[in-house]
Amino acid sequence: MRALVFDGELRVDEEYPEPQPGPGEALVRVTLAGICNTDLEITRGYMGFRGVLGHEFVGVVEQASDPAWIGRRVVGEINCACGVCVTCRAGRPTHCPNRTTIGIAGHDGVIAECAVLPLENLHEVPEAVSDREAVFVEPLAAALEITEQAHVRPTERVIVLGDGKLGLLTAQVLALTGCDLLVLGRHERKLGILGRRGIPTLQVHDELDLAAAGVAAADLVVECTGRPEGLAMARRLVRPRGRLVLKSTLHAESPLNLTMVVVDEITVIGSRCGPFAPALRLLALKLVDVESLIDSEYPLSESLAAFRRAIAPGALKVLISG
Amino acid sequence: MRALVFDGELRVDEEYPEPQPGPGEALVRVTLAGICNTDLEITRGYMGFRGVLGHEFVGVVEQASDPAWIGRRVVGEINCACGVCVTCRAGRPTHCPNRTTIGIAGHDGVIAECAVLPLENLHEVPEAVSDREAVFVEPLAAALEITEQAHVRPTERVIVLGDGKLGLLTAQVLALTGCDLLVLGRHERKLGILGRRGIPTLQVHDELDLAAAGVAAADLVVECTGRPEGLAMARRLVRPRGRLVLKSTLHAESPLNLTMVVVDEITVIGSRCGPFAPALRLLALKLVDVESLIDSEYPLSESLAAFRRAIAPGALKVLISG
Repeated sequence: MRALVFDGELRVDEEYPEPQPGPGEALVRVTLAGICNTDLEITRGYMGFRGVLGHEFVGVVEQASDPAWIGRRVVGEINCACGVCVTCRAGRPTHCPNRTTIGIAGHDGVIAECAVLPLENLHEVPEAVSDREAVFVEPLAAALEITEQAHVRPTERVIVLGDGKLGLLTAQVLALTGCDLLVLGRHERKLGILGRRGIPTLQVHDELDLAAAGVAAADLVVECTGRPEGLAMARRLVRPRGRLVLKSTLHAESPLNLTMVVVDEITVIGSRCGPFAPALRLLALKLVDVESLIDSEYPLSESLAAFRRAIAPGALKVLISG
Repeated sequence: MRALVFDGELRVDEEYPEPQPGPGEALVRVTLAGICNTDLEITRGYMGFRGVLGHEFVGVVEQASDPAWIGRRVVGEINCACGVCVTCRAGRPTHCPNRTTIGIAGHDGVIAECAVLPLENLHEVPEAVSDREAVFVEPLAAALEITEQAHVRPTERVIVLGDGKLGLLTAQVLALTGCDLLVLGRHERKLGILGRRGIPTLQVHDELDLAAAGVAAADLVVECTGRPEGLAMARRLVRPRGRLVLKSTLHAESPLNLTMVVVDEITVIGSRCGPFAPALRLLALKLVDVESLIDSEYPLSESLAAFRRAIAPGALKVLISG
């Protein structure tokens, strides 16, 4: 089958072996896949991954050990857990120490004609959610992980730092709490997507801009810039005893002044993959707009060009159709 | 008056000007003061403080604008807040941006014959609490700040890393929750203080010791080693989605792999000064033993020798009597 493979270099393999589903697994024909910043980080060495890239997708089940799944339109969670270890039994399968992660660690990804996933990772997509919406379920779930981990009060001042794909999804999810939200970013065009939905935004390039605008410290700050320098700014935007949520995974050590974390009694919350079911519900209810986040769509045969586009400054979500 | 002064070097000043209480303040004659690791850090440059050292004390009010306080035996909170700013009005006076901190920032300390404090910082010491107990109220309050900030469940596995003064107080406070507690430290003698109270301890010097002992990751880890290398070990001892409480303020940048904080969804909680009233209650109820934490007691005139003793390896709490 055709697949986008990273084995030190990125290439389209026309004869990659089609995966075979085992017991408890499904073979999914991929309709649409999305390129995530993590995919770009992997091509820079993150996780040392080798294999088929991609973990955001929507597709149709073609084979499955449970025939009830065949023909269903699905999205899929990306962590494949062992199900038997202490962590799995404690109800934290996304942290299973024996897990593989689709397109990230030990498991081929979805930028291919077909992919194999455990049946327990699949979620059927309701009719009200289109393919172009469903392909956003994985990153939207990551945004929902914030409200899964932290109680965001409607009376709190919240700042989202970063206007990339995850920042725009996070801002839309947090706006639903009724909180006093401000989104800081560098790109007028991206901030405009939120501005048109009535979400307050401010274009800032550096600390001088922030100081000039008189942005006050917030109760909760979400760092989704994906850049190491975003961390220091995010830290300074948190009030004493406030909370700082980290969403960026960077292939680099990030500096954080931990003495000031102690003195100001900041709570720092690492946040990663989130729950799929509420993401599907928000999309079905049309409470989150993802169509405006789509930059472009390429056929699988042109997925190298899709990657080049995804790396370009200012690009939003680049999709690859099967 | 006689006072222990740091002005780039540490010296006993025999003719330091006696402070004069203003409106809303008290002049306290210091009965007993304690040396804290923060005092040692200050003599290494922490906070750039100049003036009378010390912030742990018990004493008797000698002058006060409210005469009801005169003659009372008191301890005192160390943050002097402005009372009018947004942070104070939000109920977080210990984080007032205009605050001074006794013996640490902008306010003379208590290793002296007398000290001046705001009346609102004072807490009367009940009869059931001796002077040698009361001098521990400030660090015991810092240990209670952990349970003030974080819900420590009685079913959780908790590790305290560090067997210094704060580690021993923290361990005693956390044991009161009924949690499954283990204290890791380097010093057989210090761990023995907890062991005699029935608190499980393990002597470890490095990661090899930890691996050999098969110490499993915990739900909550409190870092109170006061050493930069303690941080990495503490981090590795936290399970995915667990909590890491930081109590050490170090005059140095500390490295923390923030990508792994995100991937493992760790919550990092900075923790500093705590509530005095519950500390006095626990001492009055004899639920925390501090007598065994006292290393030695020196007269104020010999406070340089007291400091030398406090710096010595293995020293516990060194007291200075007025």
